[in-house]
Amino acid sequence: MGITSHDVARLAGVSQPTVSRALRDDPRVSQATREKVKRAAQALNYVPSEAGRTLSTRATRRIGVIVTDLTNPFYPHLIAPLHDELSDLGYRMMLITERSDEAVAEQKLLDQSMDGVVLATATTDSRLPAQLEGRGVPYVFLNRDTGRAGDFASVVDNEGGGRLVARELVALGHRRIAGIFGAANTTTGRERELGFRWALAEAGVGLPENRVVRGAFEYDTGYRALPALLEADEAPTAVFCGNDVVAIGVLNAALAAGVKIPDELTVIGFDDLPMAAWEVFQLTTVRHDLRELSRQAARLLVRRIAEDVDPAGERLVLPTEFVPRATHARVR
Amino acid sequence: MGITSHDVARLAGVSQPTVSRALRDDPRVSQATREKVKRAAQALNYVPSEAGRTLSTRATRRIGVIVTDLTNPFYPHLIAPLHDELSDLGYRMMLITERSDEAVAEQKLLDQSMDGVVLATATTDSRLPAQLEGRGVPYVFLNRDTGRAGDFASVVDNEGGGRLVARELVALGHRRIAGIFGAANTTTGRERELGFRWALAEAGVGLPENRVVRGAFEYDTGYRALPALLEADEAPTAVFCGNDVVAIGVLNAALAAGVKIPDELTVIGFDDLPMAAWEVFQLTTVRHDLRELSRQAARLLVRRIAEDVDPAGERLVLPTEFVPRATHARVR
Repeated sequence: MGITSHDVARLAGVSQPTVSRALRDDPRVSQATREKVKRAAQALNYVPSEAGRTLSTRATRRIGVIVTDLTNPFYPHLIAPLHDELSDLGYRMMLITERSDEAVAEQKLLDQSMDGVVLATATTDSRLPAQLEGRGVPYVFLNRDTGRAGDFASVVDNEGGGRLVARELVALGHRRIAGIFGAANTTTGRERELGFRWALAEAGVGLPENRVVRGAFEYDTGYRALPALLEADEAPTAVFCGNDVVAIGVLNAALAAGVKIPDELTVIGFDDLPMAAWEVFQLTTVRHDLRELSRQAARLLVRRIAEDVDPAGERLVLPTEFVPRATHARVR
Repeated sequence: MGITSHDVARLAGVSQPTVSRALRDDPRVSQATREKVKRAAQALNYVPSEAGRTLSTRATRRIGVIVTDLTNPFYPHLIAPLHDELSDLGYRMMLITERSDEAVAEQKLLDQSMDGVVLATATTDSRLPAQLEGRGVPYVFLNRDTGRAGDFASVVDNEGGGRLVARELVALGHRRIAGIFGAANTTTGRERELGFRWALAEAGVGLPENRVVRGAFEYDTGYRALPALLEADEAPTAVFCGNDVVAIGVLNAALAAGVKIPDELTVIGFDDLPMAAWEVFQLTTVRHDLRELSRQAARLLVRRIAEDVDPAGERLVLPTEFVPRATHARVR
């Protein structure tokens, strides 16, 4: 505090605008002058004000990332690689963790303090994408998108993953199958359910609504859903969970209820978080490359900021893989 | 984009500086003029540029939060309430997740783009606090501090918590006790170990170095430490872990090794994260109020920014409580 570009200008014997240009290596300033200014800045321990820089260059080198629930163990695994890739690309990450995409974002993202935005928890009914579009703020979807044409998104082949699980359950002889899916206004919830339903239908296996639960992708969703599913007349022999966090809620509820996994119930998740492999769970699940999912989103956003994208939209889809562990078994 | 304060000024029939003052409710502008300007701004859908506002008020209303490992399940539980409290106080949170406190912070925090900083993963050897001090950037420590006089910090009574565990283990008859503590350059690691050692010493129970491990507060630290501790000549009957995440690594390693908890080994954690209560773990641990820890840090920082603190430093310490669950037992 205290030292300004005017002080540097005086010491270097140049004008103030020349100081600003020299410090950002503007070619209009000669090499010799740039070095003189840098020596003066160093001597005074001068750090350029970011706000001043923003006004002169119009770029903030700052990316906003919106996540609605950071305490969900899934998101840190998305956020950490996203941060690293953005940092490698020369951007700072500003994390905005709000309760909803809406009001918030109107206030905080549209004021030109960010060069672009990553939407990590978009819902299909969110108004935010249209608002960003209207303001000319570049953005990409990460993990969830709107499912509509024209999106710029880094996503997973959720339908394919849902199909893999359905085929596995059918092959193991399961016919009374339950699903605890994500919210219907998320593409991850909807697409995993759709793929699962389609493959079951192809095999002639039904999925009646009384064996379907939809809810937030949280521990409590699985933990609360299991008792009700087990109380039904014909209890399911297998349950497909919308993600690993929900499945871990189911595994804990099963332990509380004395239900033996996998002998009495097959449980399958989605994501392959590190904790899925923990000895206490050994969760059978669907793997995708979480790290690459985030890194791909960062690169796509930076390309979009540079207007180096297909204007018709780019939806980058990562493949899925079935990961057999210890929570699935042939029906008895 | 496009609409500027000049357009608003023209529509409202006032000067441009009056628009800026009216929109931040500056009392120099009459109530009637403020309302006229706001109606004009609303009609034009005008959002003030943050960069321009920063230059005129010198405050960014932005708080930096430094966390070195976001994938550690502990930090989201700190970050979420911190975000909420800062938001209630009118600040945005900018999360900086880097590999070390050092180089990073020099670059990114000292350029006046933030009104203050929360250090959530400080180490006792970090140079960052002195740098912030030198630049006049207000900061507070959250959870970890330097342990030196003059800190502004929201912390837990780590020594007291360590003592609680030692007394409990001694009362249960344990004499061959191990510790898997946090890194020695963290106050949370050091203080928990100190309190634990003191209370053991008071009871005449030793803690030899071959039953002590120190490492990062991570799952792998516990997971890797257990096999070595069990192979020792006189294997421990109880192990105190630096935090719950480490303890959960130990519980998984015990399952892998076929060690029965708590019959063959007592395991105790620290923090009482939500997952400590999961059925699969039922971890006996030490509880503190994580939410209040973060909220208290946010309020302290905002007071420090307003220069409404004791200049000699304020160290706000939350109490701890022993939480008995299913991973401790009397020695056999």
